Amino acid sequence: MSSALALAARGLGNTWPNPSVGCVIVRDGRVVGRGRTRPGGRPHAETEALRAAGEAARGATAYVTLEPCCHWGRTPPCTDALIAAGVARVVVALRDPDPRVDGVGLQRLRDAGIEVEVGLLEEEARRVNAGFLKRFGCGLPMVTVKLATTMDGRIATRTGESQWITGPEARRLAHALRGAHDAVMAGSGTLLADDPELTCRLPGYAPVPTVRVVADARLRTPLRARLFNSEAPAWIATAPGHDPASMAALEQRGAAFIDVPAAPGGGLEPEALLRALAGKGITRLLVEGGAALAASLLRAGLVDRVAWFTAPSVIGGDGRAGLDPIGVETLAAMPRLKVTGRRQAGDCWLVEADLMPGDAATG
Amino acid sequence: MSSALALAARGLGNTWPNPSVGCVIVRDGRVVGRGRTRPGGRPHAETEALRAAGEAARGATAYVTLEPCCHWGRTPPCTDALIAAGVARVVVALRDPDPRVDGVGLQRLRDAGIEVEVGLLEEEARRVNAGFLKRFGCGLPMVTVKLATTMDGRIATRTGESQWITGPEARRLAHALRGAHDAVMAGSGTLLADDPELTCRLPGYAPVPTVRVVADARLRTPLRARLFNSEAPAWIATAPGHDPASMAALEQRGAAFIDVPAAPGGGLEPEALLRALAGKGITRLLVEGGAALAASLLRAGLVDRVAWFTAPSVIGGDGRAGLDPIGVETLAAMPRLKVTGRRQAGDCWLVEADLMPGDAATG
Repeated sequence: MSSALALAARGLGNTWPNPSVGCVIVRDGRVVGRGRTRPGGRPHAETEALRAAGEAARGATAYVTLEPCCHWGRTPPCTDALIAAGVARVVVALRDPDPRVDGVGLQRLRDAGIEVEVGLLEEEARRVNAGFLKRFGCGLPMVTVKLATTMDGRIATRTGESQWITGPEARRLAHALRGAHDAVMAGSGTLLADDPELTCRLPGYAPVPTVRVVADARLRTPLRARLFNSEAPAWIATAPGHDPASMAALEQRGAAFIDVPAAPGGGLEPEALLRALAGKGITRLLVEGGAALAASLLRAGLVDRVAWFTAPSVIGGDGRAGLDPIGVETLAAMPRLKVTGRRQAGDCWLVEADLMPGDAATG
Repeated sequence: MSSALALAARGLGNTWPNPSVGCVIVRDGRVVGRGRTRPGGRPHAETEALRAAGEAARGATAYVTLEPCCHWGRTPPCTDALIAAGVARVVVALRDPDPRVDGVGLQRLRDAGIEVEVGLLEEEARRVNAGFLKRFGCGLPMVTVKLATTMDGRIATRTGESQWITGPEARRLAHALRGAHDAVMAGSGTLLADDPELTCRLPGYAPVPTVRVVADARLRTPLRARLFNSEAPAWIATAPGHDPASMAALEQRGAAFIDVPAAPGGGLEPEALLRALAGKGITRLLVEGGAALAASLLRAGLVDRVAWFTAPSVIGGDGRAGLDPIGVETLAAMPRLKVTGRRQAGDCWLVEADLMPGDAATG
C-alpha cells in the first residue's frame, strides 16, 4: 500500500478534478502490476495496473489507495474491471466520499465474492487525497501557502529588491511544488512587482499544465505580463464592474475571468475566491504571494499547509515582510503549525507544515 | 584530539578570561588521563590530565587543544609539568596567540627532547577557542546573537505579548546556551518589557555564574529588576552623565557600571561597548535582545554567530520584529550566514550559524 501511495503522490497536480490514485497488484508475494491515474484523470489506476498484470491478476491481491469507482463516468467502473480480471482480494486505504461511490464500490466487490479490506494506511491516504477530499467535503481546494524568506521573514529589501532571496536549488524545489498542485495563485501586486510566469519549468514534471491564477480585484494585470507567454491556462479572478474593453483585451491575450465579490477591506473575498476555484475543479492550490493574499487567507482560516523556504540571511526590520497583518492580538490566537517535513535545498531549507485546526481563524 | 576538543567545549563559559583547554593522555593506545581547564580558569587541562595519569604519563602521548603555557601565571608552566612527567610526545591542535607563549611553549618541549606535532584538528580547535582568539586578536568578544521567533520572524504580538513564543524545550536549550557563554547581554528595553533574570538555571551547568550585562544608555534599569535577584554579577553598560544618586542606588542593588560612549543615533556605541566587555575579560558574549541591540551589532559587523530558535507559528506583519532595521538596501548588502548546526527542541528548532565575513558591515 505504501508503494501504491507513492504512485498516487507522483500524480498530484495532474489528475484534477479526479483524485490521483495508486494501485499495486500482488500475486504470491510478487508485484505483478502497478498503475496510477494517468495525467488528465484517466485511465484510472486499477485499469493501468490490471493491464500490466494481465493474466497474473487472477487470484491476486489489489492494493488501491482509494475505493474503486462503481459508476460509469468517462471510463467504465473499476470495480467491474477488478471482478472481470478475477482478483481474489482488494485492500483499500480509504473509502471514496463521492456519494456515487461511498461504500457501494466495496459492496459490489464483496457481492462478487472478492475479499475486501479497508483502512490500511488510511491516514497517509488522507494526506495524499487531501485536495480531493477537501473539495468534496467543503467545496474548497486544499491550500498550500509558499513563502521564501530570509531568516527574519523578509521577502525583499526596503527598496523592493527581491530576486533572489533563495538559491537555485530552492527555486527548483519550488517549481516541483507548482507541478504537484493543480493551480498556482499570486496577487496582482506580486505580478506587478516580479512578473512571474508561475509555471513549473521542470522537464516532464507537469504533463498537465498548472493553471495560473491572479487574484486581481482591481484588474491591474498588465497585457504584457509574462504570465501570457505560456500556453498553460491563465485565470484572472476579479471583482465585477471593470471596463469590458480592458477585459476583452486580456481575454485576447489568453486570460479567462472568474467573478469573485470584492472584500470590504480591499482585495477579493477570500472564501468566495477559493469556492470559485474549487467550482472549476481545482483540488490543490499553491499560493505564491504576496504578503497580502497569504495573510487574507490565513486570517480567514483557509490555509491548510505552508511550504516555507528559508535562506541563511537577514534583511532587518525595514525589509518587506512575507506576511501582512493577520489580526493576532494575543499569543493564544496565533496560528500554530505542525511540521510535516524538512528538506535541505542548497544552502536554503524548506519546512513543510500543516496549519493546526481551530487556530487559524482569528480575523 | 577529538575527545580533547569535546572536553574543552564542555568548559566554555566557565574559564574566562582563560581559554578552555582539553587534554587527553594516551599510552600504548589506551587513555590514561583526561583533563580540562577547571571552572575559573585553573588548574589547567594538562595538570589535570597528568594528575589522573600519574606514572602512566611516562613515555605517553599528550593531546592538547591549545599550545601548553610556558610562563608563570597564577599556575606553574604546563610545559614544565609535561617535561617533568616524562611525556614522550605532545600533539597540539593550535598555537597559543598569547605573545608570552606563541611557539615558545612548543620550543621548550622540543628542547627537552619531546616530539611535538602541531595542527591536528586545527579548524575545530579554532571554533572551540573562538572567543579566546577573538579577544586576543581583536580586543573584542566573540558575539552570538540569540533570537527566538515565529516562522515569520516575530518576537511578540502587536500588543507586546511575547511569553512564550517558543516551548519549554527550546527555553531549556537557551539556558544551556547562556551557560556556555561568559556573559549574557540584553538591552534595557528587553529588561523593561520582560524583566528577565538572564541566568543559566540548569542544575550544575554553569559553575562560574554567567555575567549579566544590560546595555542601558539612558539608565532605565529599574531597582526592582529581577536581574538583581541572582548572586551572579550584574553589569550595567551606560553612557556618562547620569544622576549619581540613581547610580548609587543601583550599585546598592549589586550593579557594577561600565562607561561606554553613547551612539549618535541613540543607544551605546556598539564597538566601544564590546571592547569594554573584552577589557573586563569577556571572551564569549550572548546577546539576547532586543531587536534594537541585535540590529546595532549586526549593522556594525560585530556579530560572529546567531542561535535562532523558531517556533512553528506565525504572528503576521503587525507583530514585533526580532530585528530592527540594519540598513540593507540591496540583496548584495544583506548579511549572509553559514549554518553550522541544527537541533530540534520540542516542536521548535534551533539553527546555529556563523555570519559570513565581509557581508555584515552595511551601515
